[in-house]
Amino acid sequence: MIIVLRPDSTPEQIEHILEHIQQLGFRPHLSRGEKRTIIGVIGDEDKLQGEPLSAIPGVEQVLPILKPFKLASREMHPADTVVVVGASVPGVRPARVGGGALALIAGPCAVESAEILDTIADQVKAAGANILRGGAFKPRTSPYSFQGLGEEGLRILRDVGRKHGLPVVTEVMDPRQVGLVARYADMFQVGARNMQNFDLLKEVGQTRLPVLLKRGMSATVKDLLMSAEYILSEGNPNVVLCERGVRSFEDSTRNMLDMSAVPNVKGQSHLPIIVDPSHATGRPDLIPSMARASVAAGADGVHVEVHSCPEKALSDGPQALLPKQYAELTQDLRKLAEVMGKTI
Amino acid sequence: MIIVLRPDSTPEQIEHILEHIQQLGFRPHLSRGEKRTIIGVIGDEDKLQGEPLSAIPGVEQVLPILKPFKLASREMHPADTVVVVGASVPGVRPARVGGGALALIAGPCAVESAEILDTIADQVKAAGANILRGGAFKPRTSPYSFQGLGEEGLRILRDVGRKHGLPVVTEVMDPRQVGLVARYADMFQVGARNMQNFDLLKEVGQTRLPVLLKRGMSATVKDLLMSAEYILSEGNPNVVLCERGVRSFEDSTRNMLDMSAVPNVKGQSHLPIIVDPSHATGRPDLIPSMARASVAAGADGVHVEVHSCPEKALSDGPQALLPKQYAELTQDLRKLAEVMGKTI
Amino acid sequence: MIIVLRPDSTPEQIEHILEHIQQLGFRPHLSRGEKRTIIGVIGDEDKLQGEPLSAIPGVEQVLPILKPFKLASREMHPADTVVVVGASVPGVRPARVGGGALALIAGPCAVESAEILDTIADQVKAAGANILRGGAFKPRTSPYSFQGLGEEGLRILRDVGRKHGLPVVTEVMDPRQVGLVARYADMFQVGARNMQNFDLLKEVGQTRLPVLLKRGMSATVKDLLMSAEYILSEGNPNVVLCERGVRSFEDSTRNMLDMSAVPNVKGQSHLPIIVDPSHATGRPDLIPSMARASVAAGADGVHVEVHSCPEKALSDGPQALLPKQYAELTQDLRKLAEVMGKTI
Amino acid sequence: MIIVLRPDSTPEQIEHILEHIQQLGFRPHLSRGEKRTIIGVIGDEDKLQGEPLSAIPGVEQVLPILKPFKLASREMHPADTVVVVGASVPGVRPARVGGGALALIAGPCAVESAEILDTIADQVKAAGANILRGGAFKPRTSPYSFQGLGEEGLRILRDVGRKHGLPVVTEVMDPRQVGLVARYADMFQVGARNMQNFDLLKEVGQTRLPVLLKRGMSATVKDLLMSAEYILSEGNPNVVLCERGVRSFEDSTRNMLDMSAVPNVKGQSHLPIIVDPSHATGRPDLIPSMARASVAAGADGVHVEVHSCPEKALSDGPQALLPKQYAELTQDLRKLAEVMGKTI
Repeated sequence: MIIVLRPDSTPEQIEHILEHIQQLGFRPHLSRGEKRTIIGVIGDEDKLQGEPLSAIPGVEQVLPILKPFKLASREMHPADTVVVVGASVPGVRPARVGGGALALIAGPCAVESAEILDTIADQVKAAGANILRGGAFKPRTSPYSFQGLGEEGLRILRDVGRKHGLPVVTEVMDPRQVGLVARYADMFQVGARNMQNFDLLKEVGQTRLPVLLKRGMSATVKDLLMSAEYILSEGNPNVVLCERGVRSFEDSTRNMLDMSAVPNVKGQSHLPIIVDPSHATGRPDLIPSMARASVAAGADGVHVEVHSCPEKALSDGPQALLPKQYAELTQDLRKLAEVMGKTI
Repeated sequence: MIIVLRPDSTPEQIEHILEHIQQLGFRPHLSRGEKRTIIGVIGDEDKLQGEPLSAIPGVEQVLPILKPFKLASREMHPADTVVVVGASVPGVRPARVGGGALALIAGPCAVESAEILDTIADQVKAAGANILRGGAFKPRTSPYSFQGLGEEGLRILRDVGRKHGLPVVTEVMDPRQVGLVARYADMFQVGARNMQNFDLLKEVGQTRLPVLLKRGMSATVKDLLMSAEYILSEGNPNVVLCERGVRSFEDSTRNMLDMSAVPNVKGQSHLPIIVDPSHATGRPDLIPSMARASVAAGADGVHVEVHSCPEKALSDGPQALLPKQYAELTQDLRKLAEVMGKTI
Repeated sequence: MIIVLRPDSTPEQIEHILEHIQQLGFRPHLSRGEKRTIIGVIGDEDKLQGEPLSAIPGVEQVLPILKPFKLASREMHPADTVVVVGASVPGVRPARVGGGALALIAGPCAVESAEILDTIADQVKAAGANILRGGAFKPRTSPYSFQGLGEEGLRILRDVGRKHGLPVVTEVMDPRQVGLVARYADMFQVGARNMQNFDLLKEVGQTRLPVLLKRGMSATVKDLLMSAEYILSEGNPNVVLCERGVRSFEDSTRNMLDMSAVPNVKGQSHLPIIVDPSHATGRPDLIPSMARASVAAGADGVHVEVHSCPEKALSDGPQALLPKQYAELTQDLRKLAEVMGKTI
Repeated sequence: MIIVLRPDSTPEQIEHILEHIQQLGFRPHLSRGEKRTIIGVIGDEDKLQGEPLSAIPGVEQVLPILKPFKLASREMHPADTVVVVGASVPGVRPARVGGGALALIAGPCAVESAEILDTIADQVKAAGANILRGGAFKPRTSPYSFQGLGEEGLRILRDVGRKHGLPVVTEVMDPRQVGLVARYADMFQVGARNMQNFDLLKEVGQTRLPVLLKRGMSATVKDLLMSAEYILSEGNPNVVLCERGVRSFEDSTRNMLDMSAVPNVKGQSHLPIIVDPSHATGRPDLIPSMARASVAAGADGVHVEVHSCPEKALSDGPQALLPKQYAELTQDLRKLAEVMGKTI
C-alpha cells in the first residue's frame, strides 16, 4: 500500500503517520520526491484494507497495490474451476460449466404451469440446452406485477427437469428460502438486484449447491468477484458468474452488455463466467448475435430465456426467444464452440 | 397506453392485436397515420402493465402514459407526508421529517462502543442533530471487513439515544432481523444495496416503524418510488426517501450526488426526501457544501456521518466529519433553512 | 406524435393546444381516457420535431413515434451499403466494408517515423490487414502530450500505404484540415471526441471520401446515427460507423465496449459498422477476445492498434498488440468469418 | 510515479525496467514487498506522463501521484481567479465572475429576432441578470433542426446587449469562426460537445476574451480541468468553467447535474465555476431549486435560459423559464448569496 502525502503536510503529521503504521504492525518506508512525499507500507496488505488511513491528517490519497479478493483470484488458484450442476441426481445428466465445457441454460422467465414448462423443456432440450431455468420467486420492480408461483413453481420446475433429464436452476431472493429452494433446485440463481445482499450470499455459501451469481446493475467486475468471495469464504466453491448487462445511458437496450467482462474475469479469476443476453439487451432481435459473440469471447455458457408463447408470458415475455429461434441459435453456437475449442 | 405498429405489420397481425386487447378487457382505438398506425388502449392502465404487449408480432413499441406507482404519487395524495420518528418513546424528543420540518440525522457509520457513541451523540446533539444514526449490521463489500456489532450494537445505540433524548435510526439488511431491529430502533434504514431487496421491503412494510429508504446505486427516481410503493402497499405509510448518490464514470467522488432528485421526487410524490452527502461524495471536503446545497434544493433533511476520531473508525472513517466541522455546518444550515422557510 | 395532457389541464389549455397544432399544419386527434387525455398528431412528423410542444401549458409529455434519422435508416434504404476504401488509387488494393466483406484495419496509434510505420505495415499486411491506420493529428487530453507529426505524418502514411498496396485511414480533427487530409488519405476518421463536431461533419460530408465515424463516449446509438445523418445529408454516402466503447463506472477497462451496438445499428441502418476493441478496452489482454466477439456479433470489420514496440510508442502504446499477436488473432478471425459467412 | 510489477515478473524484466527509467532521465527506487515489488520513480512526473510504461513486460500497473494539470491548479495559483466580462466596452457594465462575485447569465437558447431578444433582455436585466446570453451558431443533434442565425444573430446579440448595458456571451463551434465571434461577443462559450475539440480550445486560447467552458457530457472533473489547461497554456487566463450535467441512466432529466463538481473544482483549481441548471435538468420545474442549490454549493454564478414565449422558441423552448419565473428566482438567489457572503 502506498500513502501519498499532501504537499502541505507537516513534519508532525508525517511523524504521526509513521507511528500509526508501526502501531498497526507494518513497516513504513518514506520516500521524498520533488513534489510529493510518499510512504510505502510493507506487510500483509489484507489486514490494512479496513484501516481508514486516508482520514489521517496530512494524507492526500491511499493507493492499494493488491486485489481485495483472494479465494476468487487466479493467483491463489491458477487452474480453471469446473462446476458440475446436477451431479448425482438420479435420471439427470449433469452439466459441466467451465474448463472447456459450455453450459446452455434455457427456459422461461417464470414457471407458469406444468404444461407450458413441459413444452418449453422438450423444445430447448432438443435444441441442445443442458440446464433448464425457470423462476418461482420473481423480483419485480412493481408490487402489482406477478410475483411467481412460489413452492408450487419449484415443484413443477424440478418435476419437469427430472422428466427431461435436465438439471434445473432457479432464483432465490430471501435467506429464509435457501433451504426450501435447495430441496428442489440443482443450482441457485442469485439475481442482479441481490448481488450485494450479503446475508443471502452467506446463506447460499453455507450450502454446497452450485450458485449462479449475476452481476449487479452497477457492479464493477471487482465488486462481482468480491461477492463471489463472500460465497467462497463460507465454504461453497461452486460459483458460476454471469454477465447480464449493466445500467447505462443507452436507452434503446434494457441494459448494456459488458462483453469484455468475460476475458476480464478470466484473467483475474478461476471461476467460470457465462453471459445472459436476454436480460442484457431485453430485445429478441439482438439476443442471437450477442449469444454468438459470447461464445467467441470465451464465455463458459449462455443463458437465454425461451418461451413458446411470449405474448402470453406472465413475466418478461418481450425478451424471450421462440423455441424455433433458439434451435437455430444453438446450431450457430455449436459451430462457434468448435472454433473456440469448447464442447457442449 | 399507446401501441405503435411496425411499418410492415400485416392486416392479420393488426386484427390479432385488436382481438387480444379486447380479450384483456380493454377498448382498442386504431389511428392510421402517414407512416405509422397506432392503437390507443382505453381502460385501467395499471392492469395492462404486466402484459407483454411488445411481444406480439407486428408491434414496434408500447408507450405507457401513466406512472406505475400509485400510493407514492402526489396525484393520489396531494399533501406532503410528515413522518414522525421516535413518537411516544419516553424521554425522547420526536423528530418530524417533511412538511417544512428539517431532519438532521448524524452519527458514526458503525456503532463501535458505548463510550465512542456517547461522545459523538453528545456533540451532534449540541450541534442541533435531532436523530442519531449508527450501524449495527454493516453491508461491506468485502467479507473480511468489520461487519458490525449486531444486537450488542443495537442495544448501545438505543441506550445512548435514550440518554440524549434522540430517536435512533439503524440499518436492517435481512428480513429475519426486522423484528430484532424493531425492538431497538425508532426508524429502519434500508440501504442502497437493498433498495430492490423486495422481501426486505415487504417485511418492513408490515411494521409501522418509519423507514429511511436509500436510493440504489443505479436506481432511477422512478425505481426509488416503486420501492417505496412496496412498503406503502404493505400498509406502512412512514417512508422517508434518501438521495445518496449514484454510480457514474466520475472517479474523483465515491458516487455522483443527483441533487435534482430532490425536486424531482417532490413534484411526483408526497413523501419526504433527505440527502446523504457523506455517502454521495465520500469526501469530507465536499460534504458541507453539498449539505448546504441540499437544504437550498428543498430537501427535508440531511444525513451526515460524524466521528470524533475518523482515523480510528472501524468503517468509512475517511468520509466522516469531525464534530467541530459538523457544528459549523449546522450553523449554516440554520441560516439556509430560514431562507427556505423551514424549521429544524 | 402523441401529446399526453396533464390530469389538471383546463378546457382552455386543450383548446389552445388544438389550435396551435392546426396552425402548424397538422390534424390533431383527441382521445379522452379515464385518467389522461391524449392528442394524436397526424402529418409529417419530421416537421414537428423542432417544435417545443412540451412547453405549452397543459402538456405533460410528448411521445415521438418515428425515428429522427432518415438517410441513415434502413426503412429508407433496405439494402446494406458497401463502402469501398481506396477505389481507383493506382497500386492500391481497394478494401470493401459491409455487405459480407470484412475490413481489417490495423496500424499504430500515431505515425512516428517512416521506418517504424513501414515495419508495422509490412507485418499487419502479412497478417491479413486490408487498411492501414495511423494518426498524424492526435486529439490528446493533455496539451503537453505528443500531438502528432501533422502533414509530415500524412505524407509518411500515404507513402507507406502505397508501398504496401494498402489504402490508409487517418483522423481529421479540424474543419480547416479536411482539404489537406483529403490529399493524402483514402478514408477520414472522425474521432469519438468529434462525433458531434457538426461543422467538421458537414465539411467531410461535402467530400466523397469514405468516413470512419467513431461513436462518442456518451453517445447513444441514435446519436451516432444522427451524426451519420449530418454527413449523408451533405451528400457523402460513404459512412462506416465504429463502436469504440463508451464511458461507464467500470474502472478496470478504459471504456465499456457496447457490443450490442453492432446488431442494434444493423437493424435500423444500412450503414456498415466495425468495432475498435483497442480503444474500447485499452488492454491488450482483452483485445483478441473482443475482436473475435465482434466478428461473431456480425461486425463488418475490426480496427486494432498494432505497434512493433509498444513501450516506445509515442501515443497509446499500452493498448497496442504486437505484430505477432495480431497475426495470431487474424487466423482466428478468418475461421470465425467463415462461420459467419463473411469474406476478408 | 509508482510502478507495480506483476507477481511473475522476472529479474530480467525488472532489470530492463530499471534501465529504461534511467534512460528517460529518472531515478528508479525499488522496494520488494511480500507479494509485490514496486518501483518508485523520482523526478519531474510531468515528463513521464506520455511514456507508455504500462506496456513494458512485467508491469502490472502504473500509479500516477500528481495531477496532470498545472496552470489550472490551485497548487500553482492559490488565489481565486476573477474573470471580468465586458471590461472596457463603452456603455456596458462589466460583470465579475469569481472571488465572491456572482454572475447571473440569462437569455434565450437561440437569438431569434431583435424584437424577441430585446424583450427578454429588458426583463432579465430588471431581474438582476448581469450577462446576456443567446446562440447564433447552434449545435443541434439533427441536421434538420434550426441551426441559428449566424452573423446576423451575433449582430443582434451585441446590439441588444449594448442597448441594455449588458456584456454578452455566445457559443463558438468552429475554429474558423473565432475571429468573427470575437468581433461581437464579450465572452466565448465553448459547448459541452466541443469540450475536447482541441483545435477550438487552442484558437480561443490565443485570444484574451473570457471563455465559458462547459463540461462535456461524459467528462470527468479532471478532463474539464485538462481542457481548461489547453486554453490557459495558449496564454488566455480568462476561463470560467460551467457544470451543465452529465449523461446518466436517469431518464427523467435531460442530464444529471453533478453539483459536487462545484466544490470539487474549487478545491483543485483557482478558476471560477458556474452552474447551468437549464441544460442539466431540461425541466423548468427543476431549474429554480437547482439554481438555489448551486449558490448554496458555492458556485460563482448561474446560467439560466429564459424565453418570453417558450412554446414558440426555435430551440430548447421546453427548458426555458418565463421572465416572471426568473425574476422570482433571482430574489431567492440574492438572499442565498447574502448567506454565502457573495455579491451580485
